[in-house]
Amino acid sequence: MARLKNNYRRRHNNHPGKSVSDALPAASARRRSIPSAAGGPYKVIPLGGLNEIGKNCTLIEYNNEILIIDCGFAFPEYEMFGIDLVIPDFTYLKENSEKIKGLIITHGHEDHIGGIPYLLKELNVPVYAPPLAMGLIDHKLEEHGLWCETHVIRAGDIFSIGSFRIEAIQTNHSIADSVAYSIRFLGGHIVHTGDFKVDFAPLDGKVIDLRRFAQLGDEGVDLLLCDSTNVMRNGYTPSEAIVRKSIDEIFDNTDKRIIIATFSSNVHRIKYFMEASMKHNRCIAVSGKSMEKVLTLARELGYLNNIPDSLFIRINDIRNVPDKSLTILTTGSQGEPMSALTRMANDQHKSVKLKADDVVVFSSSPIPGNEKVISQVVNQLYEKNVKVVLASAMDVHVSGHASSEELKLIHSLVRPRFFMPVHGEKRHLVEHSLLAQSLGQQSSTIFVMNNGDALVINGRKARLTKGFTSGDDVMVDGYGVGDIGNSVLRERKNLSQSGLVTIAVALDTATGSLMAVPEMRTIGLVYEQEHKDFLDEALSIVYNTIGKCAEAGSLDEQSLSKAIKSDMKGYIYRMTKRSPVIIPIILYV
Amino acid sequence: MARLKNNYRRRHNNHPGKSVSDALPAASARRRSIPSAAGGPYKVIPLGGLNEIGKNCTLIEYNNEILIIDCGFAFPEYEMFGIDLVIPDFTYLKENSEKIKGLIITHGHEDHIGGIPYLLKELNVPVYAPPLAMGLIDHKLEEHGLWCETHVIRAGDIFSIGSFRIEAIQTNHSIADSVAYSIRFLGGHIVHTGDFKVDFAPLDGKVIDLRRFAQLGDEGVDLLLCDSTNVMRNGYTPSEAIVRKSIDEIFDNTDKRIIIATFSSNVHRIKYFMEASMKHNRCIAVSGKSMEKVLTLARELGYLNNIPDSLFIRINDIRNVPDKSLTILTTGSQGEPMSALTRMANDQHKSVKLKADDVVVFSSSPIPGNEKVISQVVNQLYEKNVKVVLASAMDVHVSGHASSEELKLIHSLVRPRFFMPVHGEKRHLVEHSLLAQSLGQQSSTIFVMNNGDALVINGRKARLTKGFTSGDDVMVDGYGVGDIGNSVLRERKNLSQSGLVTIAVALDTATGSLMAVPEMRTIGLVYEQEHKDFLDEALSIVYNTIGKCAEAGSLDEQSLSKAIKSDMKGYIYRMTKRSPVIIPIILYV
Repeated sequence: MARLKNNYRRRHNNHPGKSVSDALPAASARRRSIPSAAGGPYKVIPLGGLNEIGKNCTLIEYNNEILIIDCGFAFPEYEMFGIDLVIPDFTYLKENSEKIKGLIITHGHEDHIGGIPYLLKELNVPVYAPPLAMGLIDHKLEEHGLWCETHVIRAGDIFSIGSFRIEAIQTNHSIADSVAYSIRFLGGHIVHTGDFKVDFAPLDGKVIDLRRFAQLGDEGVDLLLCDSTNVMRNGYTPSEAIVRKSIDEIFDNTDKRIIIATFSSNVHRIKYFMEASMKHNRCIAVSGKSMEKVLTLARELGYLNNIPDSLFIRINDIRNVPDKSLTILTTGSQGEPMSALTRMANDQHKSVKLKADDVVVFSSSPIPGNEKVISQVVNQLYEKNVKVVLASAMDVHVSGHASSEELKLIHSLVRPRFFMPVHGEKRHLVEHSLLAQSLGQQSSTIFVMNNGDALVINGRKARLTKGFTSGDDVMVDGYGVGDIGNSVLRERKNLSQSGLVTIAVALDTATGSLMAVPEMRTIGLVYEQEHKDFLDEALSIVYNTIGKCAEAGSLDEQSLSKAIKSDMKGYIYRMTKRSPVIIPIILYV
Repeated sequence: MARLKNNYRRRHNNHPGKSVSDALPAASARRRSIPSAAGGPYKVIPLGGLNEIGKNCTLIEYNNEILIIDCGFAFPEYEMFGIDLVIPDFTYLKENSEKIKGLIITHGHEDHIGGIPYLLKELNVPVYAPPLAMGLIDHKLEEHGLWCETHVIRAGDIFSIGSFRIEAIQTNHSIADSVAYSIRFLGGHIVHTGDFKVDFAPLDGKVIDLRRFAQLGDEGVDLLLCDSTNVMRNGYTPSEAIVRKSIDEIFDNTDKRIIIATFSSNVHRIKYFMEASMKHNRCIAVSGKSMEKVLTLARELGYLNNIPDSLFIRINDIRNVPDKSLTILTTGSQGEPMSALTRMANDQHKSVKLKADDVVVFSSSPIPGNEKVISQVVNQLYEKNVKVVLASAMDVHVSGHASSEELKLIHSLVRPRFFMPVHGEKRHLVEHSLLAQSLGQQSSTIFVMNNGDALVINGRKARLTKGFTSGDDVMVDGYGVGDIGNSVLRERKNLSQSGLVTIAVALDTATGSLMAVPEMRTIGLVYEQEHKDFLDEALSIVYNTIGKCAEAGSLDEQSLSKAIKSDMKGYIYRMTKRSPVIIPIILYV
């Protein structure tokens, strides 16, 4: 840990801190005065985050300078077979690399930082991020063997990047160190909320700086970009305090082992699990690499200062601890196949053998698309008579995103001239637009956009340029970035549905006669050993087809391949009602 | 329709109706007297429905007679690539075909009737089902070219199958004509609830016959099998009446087109959509084959008696109708790719072009696993500025399954000696067991089982025989039933993740020299045209490998295949971090 500590300090000795006070806007700028067109037009271009909850990345371009806000990845969508993750299309940034001044990060979730290594492989950009986010980014850079200039930002910091004057504002979210940004420049004043909620009782005591949002509103904001994730939830998102209460109830009422699965980045919540364990004389074992990694980082950053080292035991040593004295913190709340919790549920965890009455807490909610795999793990736990606590039955998790009333609060404080809902699927953006309209914002001043569109603002005028640049998904598969397109995905889908059949034929170039027994292989079609007859008949059809083609004098590769494909397709469909991919290979010897 | 009508009447002239009054138990049997062991032991064997919500099928075996309750299919699970559906393993039934007396059906949902054609292909079994279920079964039989003896059953009917005396009891569920069954025989008295809820204001006015459940409880029930789907929901499931209220609100407040997507089998709800349309002077167009099919059937069965034919127009004629005078009923509430609603959302529907302010109502909730595809459709609708009404925002759908308080009601009325929770994943069964225990049922009298286990009851004694027969999933893919196993699925999964590479090589049998340029094909690996270099180098590696093997004198098929596979695997992983399936094919000419 010492190594990381030094390394961490060394790398970030250039952070601006509060000292960059010369960056403060002049007092006169603090009046509510939305900039006029004097500064000339600027563009706001979201490359991601508008059709999905993921790969957030927004550009502000003004006077030949580009500022990037967040750079995340998304998890692959339905039927993106074999794809590891999806990043924004950086084409526009590559084409305008000389304009790019910096990347500012709102918080350390993957959908806001996960794309950074892929961006840095293309371009050298200085990165500004809050402490925990920066620690997570450091890990990524190390993993990918990358380096860049980095600056640690804290809520309240005011700093300049090019001619952008930026202020980081305290918010609340499900990860420590989340900020919103106020971005001023001659052409305008933008507020970007990042992901946020309004929590009056956050675990670290740092309430979202509503006063500052109000001041900014007074000073004049011409564009607000605001988180839309939970716009379809009425009322207020509950405080993290409610989780604390539920956790207390669990700890108060069991003398069995408590195993808690949660998102590793929710450091404050994890700290509370540790405090509850201390209070109940339980020691803590941690299982799961990402959990270990984040906890090391959190300790390094001082977030776990009052938690003594002696509280922890190694996961291999838990056998020596009575059930009532043990808490296990683990990953796997999303049912990830190789995660610690899934391995426990499968009886494949080296150190943790689950037993009846163990209490397993899912301090999480399912990320859409993960419902089925989580269900599988939950059922395996029930099979073992483990007591399972889900957020649907007890408040052991709360969302990190603002519900409708909190959004109304921010809109009412900031009172922007223009509004662009971000961070959501189309439905969330549209509903967020309706919410703003319900508060009196004119629909002509609200822009529900697509990734790659540009909003061009010139003083009191704004117009939308559709398809300004590519807002496409770029798929990452292994080392390949963007080398997989829809045609390859379609091939993978076809293969996954009915498998494939290959037929290799060797023909004499001169005479066209068969030089060997054709070789037929099937993969994923049927269980070969039980279907010898079927396969033998298929082979006899290949002989027929070759005979037919020989008679017609059409033994060239194209004709013969086509004939084999068509005859084989017909036969297999007739026999099985399946349509595997068929690959004839003709070798002329 | 006339054809269907006659056909339908002709086929079901043998239904027993209320006339089988001789099947009534003697008055003396109505005392609360749980049968003694006098009758000898019987077995209850669930072949499905205990690890999933789907493929429900339970056997009762007594004195060399088998009665089957329900025979459904399940939709394929996560990673069952290319599988159409999953049915119970009928091995035990095939081995004991001479014992089988009949199949009784609780209601017409696919997870209770969808397996029937596959059962009937193996065995000839008379089927007893309520009217709507029987209509749906008829369609299936016609489709599969099957025939069997069928009997239409109505709530209140009492009839005999072999020595089982069976009574159908009115319940409420999200499909018309749902019943529970009381099954008496010398050895015991079983009550099977089927899928149910307690609805005091169902749209057809037929409230679940709680009085009869109470009487049966008084008479003595030794085994209750009870629906567990919603055991984890507290309180009561709302009545269908609440949907009526929401629908009224929608119809009262729009003069735009209303498009409602719902489950086609919820005939009573659909009828209410029709009544609301009549009241608001809207005519109705229907889109979606399954919707048309079920409505034809519902009309034939008299469920739509007060709905005049003149209310309907053809979907192709909707252009002639003003927006305020049109309702469209459609399928696709689950985001099914080829369904009418999905085609509308995609701009691929022949007759319905969606426009801004159309109102689209999802009168449904997502079946687990469908969340993502439904999301896609919803976002496409928002993209078009359609007003989307989801059940999460307005009560346009209610569940058809009993919540915890309703389950407690049934347990309290029936007071069975033994209890087997059914129709649920493991978590639901375990929670249902806990619910029964909270009412005083001893845990030793509750049996949380796996598919294929047998519960053997002999008077006052019951014991569980684990793995009595196969409770496996049998996968159906096209015409193939059970010919796809895990190895084939694993192959399909591998293919879907990184595609495949085939390498065909022709060697001279005598000299081992290459007879043609090796042919390499990739499918689903990379976009071939953009990666010619990569593929050229791969080919040169094949040459190297063959050279190496030739030197070592190991040009036999096994050695050469292994070497090509291994070298190619290494090269591709190094270059792409992908692991496609590699298929070397060696032809000796």
